[in-house]
Amino acid sequence: MANDLDDNRTHEAAPGDPAPLDLTADVVSLTAALCDIESVSRDEQRVCDAIESALEPLEHLTVTRIGNTLVARTELGRDERVVLAGHIDTVPLTVDPPNLPTHREGDDLWGRGTVDMKGGVAVQLKAALVAEPSRDLTFVFYEGEEIDSEYNGLLHIQQQRPDLIEDADFAVLLEPTGSIVEGGCKGTLRAEVVTKGIAAHSARPWNGHNAIHDAAEVLARLAEYQPETVVVDGLEYREAMNAVGITGGIAGNVIPDRCVVTVNYRYAPDKSEDDAAALVDQLFSGFVVTIKDNAGGARPGLDLPAAQGFVAALGVDVVAKQGWTDVARFAAMGVPAVNFGPGDPNLAHHDEERCPVPQLESAEAALLRWLA
Amino acid sequence: MANDLDDNRTHEAAPGDPAPLDLTADVVSLTAALCDIESVSRDEQRVCDAIESALEPLEHLTVTRIGNTLVARTELGRDERVVLAGHIDTVPLTVDPPNLPTHREGDDLWGRGTVDMKGGVAVQLKAALVAEPSRDLTFVFYEGEEIDSEYNGLLHIQQQRPDLIEDADFAVLLEPTGSIVEGGCKGTLRAEVVTKGIAAHSARPWNGHNAIHDAAEVLARLAEYQPETVVVDGLEYREAMNAVGITGGIAGNVIPDRCVVTVNYRYAPDKSEDDAAALVDQLFSGFVVTIKDNAGGARPGLDLPAAQGFVAALGVDVVAKQGWTDVARFAAMGVPAVNFGPGDPNLAHHDEERCPVPQLESAEAALLRWLA
Repeated sequence: MANDLDDNRTHEAAPGDPAPLDLTADVVSLTAALCDIESVSRDEQRVCDAIESALEPLEHLTVTRIGNTLVARTELGRDERVVLAGHIDTVPLTVDPPNLPTHREGDDLWGRGTVDMKGGVAVQLKAALVAEPSRDLTFVFYEGEEIDSEYNGLLHIQQQRPDLIEDADFAVLLEPTGSIVEGGCKGTLRAEVVTKGIAAHSARPWNGHNAIHDAAEVLARLAEYQPETVVVDGLEYREAMNAVGITGGIAGNVIPDRCVVTVNYRYAPDKSEDDAAALVDQLFSGFVVTIKDNAGGARPGLDLPAAQGFVAALGVDVVAKQGWTDVARFAAMGVPAVNFGPGDPNLAHHDEERCPVPQLESAEAALLRWLA
Repeated sequence: MANDLDDNRTHEAAPGDPAPLDLTADVVSLTAALCDIESVSRDEQRVCDAIESALEPLEHLTVTRIGNTLVARTELGRDERVVLAGHIDTVPLTVDPPNLPTHREGDDLWGRGTVDMKGGVAVQLKAALVAEPSRDLTFVFYEGEEIDSEYNGLLHIQQQRPDLIEDADFAVLLEPTGSIVEGGCKGTLRAEVVTKGIAAHSARPWNGHNAIHDAAEVLARLAEYQPETVVVDGLEYREAMNAVGITGGIAGNVIPDRCVVTVNYRYAPDKSEDDAAALVDQLFSGFVVTIKDNAGGARPGLDLPAAQGFVAALGVDVVAKQGWTDVARFAAMGVPAVNFGPGDPNLAHHDEERCPVPQLESAEAALLRWLA
C-alpha cells in the first residue's frame, strides 16, 4: 500500500498537462505550442512551468523565477549586455468562435496570443538556444502585463531583483510592431479637470450655476492646444492632448453642480513626468486639476552603440513608438529600449488576432543575425 | 360553521386598517391623518379607500372611482365649474429618522406628505364639506403623480373619462406654492445632442476624430443662447436652456467616437410643443438632435372670469409657475389652471419635509372664502 502511494507520487503527465515545449521546433510551431497553453492574466503558471522546463537543459543560462516570471541570463563576459523581454499572459479568449487552439490559414497563424505576444516569446526562445551569442543576454518572460500594473512581473523584478536587469546596456521588448523597430515610447498622463457649479432645479437655473456650461472653456482650451512633435534620438514623437471622457449631470431636471473632463496627455520622452504634469496644470489653470496617473516615456537610446548595433544588424525601418509600453519600465531602470516583434499591433486583443508566418520567421532570422 | 364563516365576513376594522377620516376635524389634524396613512406611489389603495369612505355621506357629491383615483362632482347648475385637484401619493419615506408618523414642532407639522401634497388634499376635503358652494366643483384625488406618467391617475381620467373634467372653466391644483397663486406652468423638453467622431488609440489620435472636442461647439451655443422672458396672461415666464447631462468616452486610452449632451429647454406656455422642438432643432443645427420627451406648458387663463374670481377672492400674490406641473394636463384638456397650496415647494421630497400650520389654515380659509 505504501508502495502504491509512492508510485502515485511519481510525476507523470496528467491528461490536462501541456506537452513539453520543443525549442528546436520551427518558430511557427513553437508560437502555436505557446499559444495553446492558455495563459490569460493571473493564470500563467502552466506556461511559465513549460518555459522553465524548456530552459532548464540550456547550460549557458542561469534561470531565476519570481512568481510566474523568469529571468534567464548568460554570463559570458561580453562587452555588452542586452535584455530580450516579453510577457507570457494574454487577454481573455473570444468565446464564439473561440480563438484557441491556434490554426493555420494560408500564411497566417490564427489564435489568441499569436500577435500579443507569444510570437515574440517564441522568437526569444529561439534566441535562447544560441549558446555563444555575440553579446550577453538577459531573457525576461513575465506575467501580468495585460492587467493592473501591480500584477506586472517586470515591476516585481524592479522591486525585488533590479540587479537582474540594471546591468544591461539596452533592451528589446518583443511586443508586436509588424517586425520594424519602434524606439522608446511616449509617456502618458491622465488627469481629471473638474468644473464646479451650484445645483438647482432646471426650471429655475438662475438659482444655480451650470458646471457643464463651464466645461466649454475646458474643451475650448483642448481644441486650441497645439501638441508638439519632438525629435528624440532622431525619432519623431508626436504628442497628443485629448479629452477621453466627459461626464456631468445627475438628473434631467437638475442644473449640474459638477462636470469632469478626463484628459489624456501623451508626451515625448524628452519630458519628465513632472514636466508633463506641470504643462497640464498650466493648460487648465483656474480649474481643479487632479493627476490620476502618470507614466513617463522612454528614450530609444539610438545614440548608444548597443542600440545602433541592433538596428544595423536587423536592417529594418526604425520609427518612434507612439504608444506607451513596458519599455518605459526599462527606461526607469536606466536601460534604453526599443520595441521589435512580429504581428500587427492593431490585431492585438482583436477577435481576429493572427500573425503572418513570414513575420515570425523574419523576426527570428533578424535576431539570430544580430546574435551571430 | 356556516354562521361562523358569515361572522368572519362581517367587516370590522383590522389592526392594520387606518381610522376613518373625520372631515370635520381641523385642517391640521386632517392633514396629519392623511399623511399617517402611508401612500407611497403604487400603494395608494388604503388612502383612496379612506377618502372614498369619507366622501360617501356627502349627498351633494357624485363620486366616480378609476383605480385609486376619485372624481367627486357637485351638480348644482352653477354658471361656473372649477376643478380642485391633488395627488394622494407621496415619494418614499426617509428611513433614519423616519419621517412618519407626523409630529408637531411649534408651528410646523412635520412628516412625509405634509407639503407634497396631503396638506393640499386636506384643504380640498374641507372644501368638499361645503354643501352649497358658489360654483360647481369637481374634486380630483389622484394616484401615481410622483412616478412615470403611465401611472398618473389624471392621465387615466384623460384617457377613460375626460367628460368628468372637460366641462370645467378653470382648475386649481393644490400643489405647494407657499399659499400664493402660481399660474400655469412652463413646458419642458429634453433633447439629446450628439456629436460623432471616429475611435482611435489616444496615443495616435490623428487616426481618429474626437467627438468630445466637437461638443465644445454645442456648449458654446448653449452659453451664447439668450433665453426669453415671455409675458402670458400678465405673468412672466422666464425660459431656460441648459445642459443637464453630458457623457462621452469609453476608456482612458481611446479617442471617443460619441459624445451626448442632454439639453433641457423650459419654455413659456405661449409656445406649443412643436414650437419648442423646432427652436431646439434650429439651435443645434448641424448636430444629431433627438427629442427624448416634450411636455407643453399651461396658460394660467388669468384673462378668464373664473380665474380672475379665484385670484380676487384669495387676495394673494400671483406669479408664474416656473416649473412643470400637472396643470399642463388640464391645459391639454382645454382647462386653464393655476397652482395654489400650502407648503414650501423646496421642501417637497425633502428629508425635512414640514408645513407651517398657518399656511394650512390660511389656504383653507382662502378657499372657503371663495366658495362662500
